[in-house]
Amino acid sequence: MNYFRGLKIKSMNDIQLLINELIKFRDARNWDQFHNSKDLALAISIEAAELNELFLWKTTEDSEKVDKNKLKEELADVFAFSLLLV
Amino acid sequence: MNYFRGLKIKSMNDIQLLINELIKFRDARNWDQFHNSKDLALAISIEAAELNELFLWKTTEDSEKVDKNKLKEELADVFAFSLLLV
Amino acid sequence: MNYFRGLKIKSMNDIQLLINELIKFRDARNWDQFHNSKDLALAISIEAAELNELFLWKTTEDSEKVDKNKLKEELADVFAFSLLLV
Amino acid sequence: MNYFRGLKIKSMNDIQLLINELIKFRDARNWDQFHNSKDLALAISIEAAELNELFLWKTTEDSEKVDKNKLKEELADVFAFSLLLV
Repeated sequence: MNYFRGLKIKSMNDIQLLINELIKFRDARNWDQFHNSKDLALAISIEAAELNELFLWKTTEDSEKVDKNKLKEELADVFAFSLLLV
Repeated sequence: MNYFRGLKIKSMNDIQLLINELIKFRDARNWDQFHNSKDLALAISIEAAELNELFLWKTTEDSEKVDKNKLKEELADVFAFSLLLV
Repeated sequence: MNYFRGLKIKSMNDIQLLINELIKFRDARNWDQFHNSKDLALAISIEAAELNELFLWKTTEDSEKVDKNKLKEELADVFAFSLLLV
Repeated sequence: MNYFRGLKIKSMNDIQLLINELIKFRDARNWDQFHNSKDLALAISIEAAELNELFLWKTTEDSEKVDKNKLKEELADVFAFSLLLV
């Protein structure tokens, strides 16, 4: 389902800057050879699963108490691979 | 794995604006009652899978030719739920 | 994590029969050309996400009340692609 | 999509035996308290992602050369949680 289809976003200079940083970070490590669309999408899924692992076997209430730093690290990977696929 | 741990990001006014827009969009639809951390993380995974479905059974080469609008719609949902979990 | 590493399973004639049926079903449709290991694993993930979609935004209690037929259809796809990857 | 909707399966005594073994294995560890439908489905997704991680950044050809034991361990977890959800 496309939940956010109706949402309009204004010009996003910061996000373009962020993508530029990510590309620099990637190219410095020579990862661009691996970063085709299919594998980037797969990487997003795998990182999303690691994010979900923080909540597995936890109640909804206990899920709100997960370590915020771990949450941010997993989210950062989801964002990074998503931005590289834009 | 935390691939992007070393990456430093400057202050992100646009992203905060984007989160604000998302929260307004969500609250206007009364979705906040459903948006606990555990379900938001699950939503990210489900949207990531829909994104991957664009590439399923395709070669790496054919995967580069997927419809860019569909790709962006699926990515938008991944971003939206991810930003709501920040 | 490998939760079930310690589990010992006896010989599984029915499961081999099931795999044989799946392979016949697949070959009759000429799908074997698409069924490489990487795409089969991806298909498992995508079907698992469709399964999870039945529970998205639902409480743990309401999740027990999902349509058992839909649940079985989604599980069947997870099993089928998993058996084809064995 | 429900790919395997048309497939008919004969009675599966071995699979029922397998489910019985899994339930014994689980109950001996007192895991049944965590095994609600929503979390079992989530566990399937997470294990499916670990399976996919074996193939990430690999070509289709190299994906056929992954360690068969690792593949089987990841698949075993997908099967186990799927059977516990039946």
